[in-house]
Amino acid sequence: MGLELYLDLLSQPCRAVYIFAKKNSIPFELRTVDLRKGQHLSDAFAQISPLQKVPVLKDGDFTLTESVAILLYLTRKYKVPDHWYPQDLQARARVDEYLAWQHTALRRNCLRALWHKVMLPVFLGEPVSPEMLAATLAKLDVTLQVLEDKFLQDKAFLAGPHVSLADLVAITELMHPVGAGCQVFKDRPKLAAWRQRVEAAVGEVLFQEAHEVILKAKNSQPADPIIKQKLMSRVLAMIQ
Amino acid sequence: MGLELYLDLLSQPCRAVYIFAKKNSIPFELRTVDLRKGQHLSDAFAQISPLQKVPVLKDGDFTLTESVAILLYLTRKYKVPDHWYPQDLQARARVDEYLAWQHTALRRNCLRALWHKVMLPVFLGEPVSPEMLAATLAKLDVTLQVLEDKFLQDKAFLAGPHVSLADLVAITELMHPVGAGCQVFKDRPKLAAWRQRVEAAVGEVLFQEAHEVILKAKNSQPADPIIKQKLMSRVLAMIQ
Ligand SMILES: N[C@@H](CCC(=O)N[C@@H](CS)C(=O)NCC(=O)O)C(=O)O
Ligand SMILES: N[C@@H](CCC(=O)N[C@@H](CS)C(=O)NCC(=O)O)C(=O)O
Repeated sequence: MGLELYLDLLSQPCRAVYIFAKKNSIPFELRTVDLRKGQHLSDAFAQISPLQKVPVLKDGDFTLTESVAILLYLTRKYKVPDHWYPQDLQARARVDEYLAWQHTALRRNCLRALWHKVMLPVFLGEPVSPEMLAATLAKLDVTLQVLEDKFLQDKAFLAGPHVSLADLVAITELMHPVGAGCQVFKDRPKLAAWRQRVEAAVGEVLFQEAHEVILKAKNSQPADPIIKQKLMSRVLAMIQ
Repeated sequence: MGLELYLDLLSQPCRAVYIFAKKNSIPFELRTVDLRKGQHLSDAFAQISPLQKVPVLKDGDFTLTESVAILLYLTRKYKVPDHWYPQDLQARARVDEYLAWQHTALRRNCLRALWHKVMLPVFLGEPVSPEMLAATLAKLDVTLQVLEDKFLQDKAFLAGPHVSLADLVAITELMHPVGAGCQVFKDRPKLAAWRQRVEAAVGEVLFQEAHEVILKAKNSQPADPIIKQKLMSRVLAMIQ
């Protein structure tokens, strides 16, 4: 069995892995795990990944979780252009710095923006107070400023003059609040121009394809009560 | 100017960087940034690192934040034994997987355990309700189980038969709740045995030296009101 990727393109780390694999013509079998149907909570998926989260990579009998680890694995196993994860010591450190920073910063705030604005009220039928939503969006705003000031600065891409894993992980993250209807790039011309560059580097068609699901998240059908009951505590743990 | 490391050994990512550099005889100038005195909020430190967090590495005019990125940088720049970050594709992926997972899991829960149990009440004079503390410790417990079941399993170390960056980042993390007086290793013989192996691999003397500050955190003097006012909102953001 060749490479298998267990993904739901609703999930931002899954989109990063998907785009990376496609862009670099890495052959894989897509195994879709529909989170909104609770497919990740099946016994079959727990056999593959005990934490029951996506993305998961399976390469023969080697199973790997965590999008950042998966991206690095793909980078090493397949011949991909250097710019994704440059050999140069300092350039590589800049990519690592972003990848480490985002977990508790951009990742958290984009996830919360999507769930507070759309997924909790529309999909799970759990209204979020305007104060809570406002607080979430205010924190997102602060984090976007850090992204711009500390990471992007006046460079073309987050880690230097070329597109890297950092940009891919960041842009797929930002498309979460965009999918929720947040105007992430409005009044942020630097980030907006960077987004165009990343989209162009990835290819518009692939970018669109990978983001179809999230851009339609606003129209999610309400979860049926049994699914809701299964998902609720896990969702709250995820967006805490 | 050679390598400079800006650290406070109260901080767990700083302890990981400190131990790694010392253990591998990497020469550096230690620049202590006393978080409890708010030294990270000085203008001088903001010049070095705009996010005003430790650890920070300075190597000539190259400045790097994020402990994981710093550890990887040191691994690459200096000749360190392979086991810390193995060349082997799958072994390295296991280290990366742990390093990615911990940010929102063990890291978060160990930090909260320390602050809820000790630092908020003792140092900042902010009592934490017994319910809140119990919830924090219950989550820590769940995460410790994941550390044991998913990562350690029946191996000697987290990522395989040899000590790696994953173990170093994990053990320095676990010493946070230990410093707070939590019985992290009680009734967890597998984790307790692993701890002994990691301590032995690092060297007892270095391990003790790096953990002196955190093991005395319970006796922190109450912050003076001006410092408290400066630190409060940042602490709350950090442990959210
Ligand atoms: N740090 C992990 C996060 C994985 C994760 O949280 N995945 C989410 C989707 S974005 C998930 O599977 N959630 C389902 C659940 O927790 O029930 C990564 O980057 O891969
Ligand atoms: N993800 C970062 C975390 C850095 C961090 O949060 N450092 C804390 C100490 S553990 C800090 O400097 N806090 C001071 C503050 O936020 O005011 C890393 O691993 O280096």
